[in-house]
Amino acid sequence: MSVIDDVLTANQQFAKSFNYSGLAMPPKRKLAVLACMDARLAVDQMLGLEPGDAHVIRNAGGIVTEDALRSLIISHYLLGTQEFMIINHTDCGMLTFKDEELRARLERETGVPAIVPAAFHAFADVQGNVARQIGRLRADPWIPRSIAIRGFVYDVSNGRLSEVRETRTLHA
Amino acid sequence: MSVIDDVLTANQQFAKSFNYSGLAMPPKRKLAVLACMDARLAVDQMLGLEPGDAHVIRNAGGIVTEDALRSLIISHYLLGTQEFMIINHTDCGMLTFKDEELRARLERETGVPAIVPAAFHAFADVQGNVARQIGRLRADPWIPRSIAIRGFVYDVSNGRLSEVRETRTLHA
Repeated sequence: MSVIDDVLTANQQFAKSFNYSGLAMPPKRKLAVLACMDARLAVDQMLGLEPGDAHVIRNAGGIVTEDALRSLIISHYLLGTQEFMIINHTDCGMLTFKDEELRARLERETGVPAIVPAAFHAFADVQGNVARQIGRLRADPWIPRSIAIRGFVYDVSNGRLSEVRETRTLHA
Repeated sequence: MSVIDDVLTANQQFAKSFNYSGLAMPPKRKLAVLACMDARLAVDQMLGLEPGDAHVIRNAGGIVTEDALRSLIISHYLLGTQEFMIINHTDCGMLTFKDEELRARLERETGVPAIVPAAFHAFADVQGNVARQIGRLRADPWIPRSIAIRGFVYDVSNGRLSEVRETRTLHA
């Protein structure tokens, strides 16, 4: 039995006691979170979010890619979010490799040369990475200046979020 | 007080009763989920996932963008996931606009012409969209054929997942 079959069985149980009907499409708390895809990050729980509260965007590393930007633009312009929160974390897989190593491995194992993705966005410093992502968002001409943008590192050993202060952006 | 300040207060409470330390970086159930960012989707709950179980990738629409592909490649090659699950949902915001309308609005409101993102990936049919995303993943030369790839539509009115069968891919 596959894991997907297992989670579908779990979904049947979830649906039996489903009590989230009638929630509106726009996030109630006008918040969008961009976080890493890491399996240890229970994003809703760590932030006390309930279904309907916030958009949650996740990718490898919690990077402001073109796609994350696409999602955040849709989140704000079409669904009214006013605050963006970027969450990276300690012990991230993105600290464990270099883009060129992964690219070489993929080419070797599959026999297919690299086209997309153009970058894997591995990084060597979590705090610096968060600061860079804040900077990318602030620099984007389509993200209004009225939006609050703050960045954090989640500690997978104790569940705590630590803010990456804006001054880091200048020195990253 | 901002919403971000509120969720940081919630995080302090979360950290006080934190009991997820010691989880390994690779997802325990070798599963990666690509889902829409929609606020009503409690992905972990709807699938019965615990922290540490699965990678969760989310973007506007649950689209196999270059960035989602990047995350899935990292998920499989570096962290060992073997099954991919795509989740779109009923009443999706992506059904409510057209790319060119949003692009025109952004240009008008900001005075800055469009460069990135190149596409917003709005769609008109959820089932068809899921089928197309499955097809994109299956066609990618860097995604091994050994990986199980299945797609679903989550019904926000009752919490149920319905599978989009592979035959749909052929007729999408």
